[in-house]
Amino acid sequence: MTSPLHRLPAGPVDLTAIETDEAPGFDGGKKKGKAALFALGDDLSDLQERLFAMGRSGSERRVLLVLQGMDTSGKGGVLRHTVGLVDPQGLRITSFKAPTDEEREHDFLWRIRRALPAAGCIGVFDRSHYEDVLIGRVRELASPEEIEERYTQINDFERELVDSGTTILKCMLHISADEQKARLLARLGDETKYWKYNPSDVDERSQWPRYREAYEIALERTNTEHAPWFVIPSDKKWYRNLIIGQLLHDTLKRLDPQWPEADFDIEVERQRLTDEAPLS
Amino acid sequence: MTSPLHRLPAGPVDLTAIETDEAPGFDGGKKKGKAALFALGDDLSDLQERLFAMGRSGSERRVLLVLQGMDTSGKGGVLRHTVGLVDPQGLRITSFKAPTDEEREHDFLWRIRRALPAAGCIGVFDRSHYEDVLIGRVRELASPEEIEERYTQINDFERELVDSGTTILKCMLHISADEQKARLLARLGDETKYWKYNPSDVDERSQWPRYREAYEIALERTNTEHAPWFVIPSDKKWYRNLIIGQLLHDTLKRLDPQWPEADFDIEVERQRLTDEAPLS
Repeated sequence: MTSPLHRLPAGPVDLTAIETDEAPGFDGGKKKGKAALFALGDDLSDLQERLFAMGRSGSERRVLLVLQGMDTSGKGGVLRHTVGLVDPQGLRITSFKAPTDEEREHDFLWRIRRALPAAGCIGVFDRSHYEDVLIGRVRELASPEEIEERYTQINDFERELVDSGTTILKCMLHISADEQKARLLARLGDETKYWKYNPSDVDERSQWPRYREAYEIALERTNTEHAPWFVIPSDKKWYRNLIIGQLLHDTLKRLDPQWPEADFDIEVERQRLTDEAPLS
Repeated sequence: MTSPLHRLPAGPVDLTAIETDEAPGFDGGKKKGKAALFALGDDLSDLQERLFAMGRSGSERRVLLVLQGMDTSGKGGVLRHTVGLVDPQGLRITSFKAPTDEEREHDFLWRIRRALPAAGCIGVFDRSHYEDVLIGRVRELASPEEIEERYTQINDFERELVDSGTTILKCMLHISADEQKARLLARLGDETKYWKYNPSDVDERSQWPRYREAYEIALERTNTEHAPWFVIPSDKKWYRNLIIGQLLHDTLKRLDPQWPEADFDIEVERQRLTDEAPLS
């Protein structure tokens, strides 16, 4: 595994022991951090196009980036600033909301399966199947036994994806409760952000310790070798965007996608074009 | 209608009379053109976010950009360089290939309807329902009567979309046969482009005059007031990208999306946050 920075070690998880407002491993501030992310763009874009080209040529390789975090932790910001660096043709972004009636009639992984990226693509989940063991647990939307079973189901599901060519990258955007409060208040003070504010966010916020516990359990139980978790200090937005950009970059780099070879005779094709009959 | 430049006038269409390699209305070359597109980015991004915010707040407004053109005309380039300027969260991009068996069992608009953008989003079609009157006509994939009927079906369908809040922007990327030949030969000479080359492209190319005719008929028959066609000179890639960027920008600007008002009591919410009980 490259990018060991922020890779969650195996074992019990204590989120209170993981900083939210530092920028470990980066020597610089906001300006330098933004420039570093921008500088990744060309490479990221090149790697993504190679992956996409391979997908068009029969490769089963694909990437799935899972973004989880409390309200205001910046899932949307990562989509805009980091994921937005690559060609949108190769992206499959899905934002998971509260399940619809139809979705509720199925197993919790049903809607997740329908949103998986095609070969050669980068899938991004803004929230995911993890909601079913986070809000699902905190709000007791399923029985304890069922929640319990889901960790195993998730690990099995992710194992299946990995076995069929998907590289999974799971990022928990880690902010402090104080930072969330500041961001919610900021939304209330900015007319361009009212639409992002939902009074129910404050209800969920009141359950902060229970959410932390639900995250800690989920992270521990699903932090597998095949689909590891990364906990990203996210109080600094520029750092969050940069680190996820680097993770995505390193993940693609490790896949080392190669331009597909020609599956036709280049000389024959060149002749066909140069010797063609007049077109009209 | 803003951006009258390249708006196709009503009446019979003669594509041979429309230039492919000029840059009308732009005073400058490649370098200046690329800078002008880049300069549009912030504004485009802002307008798109407003549209998206409105969509989240109950507005039915959305935009559909239809890209049509011969192979190598640059539909992918427009997606990467122009559409890629906005937040990928607000995009719904669909590339239409030859229909699958399932798609073939339905009306030709079935798969198109399934790919329409949600409220607040910008949908982009890389090829579209127009294939059913283009390759459909040239390759006689349906009876002449059926093809004939489709123009009306398309106009009715687009009328329905417009009536329910969609702004439709149809762009034909207009290249010369010589330019296509040069681009196909360039793909054969560049290992990073082999994957984009398909020998069947040369077969389709041999039908160039028939495709031109099919385009001329389709453009004339479906160039409605509610869903007009734009013919974009596309031999110069930078010009093509810039003009479509401007069209998209002007279309969004004309919609004049406004940040939604708060649908909650700002003061009440501020109090809830400042007066909250300790979180642990």
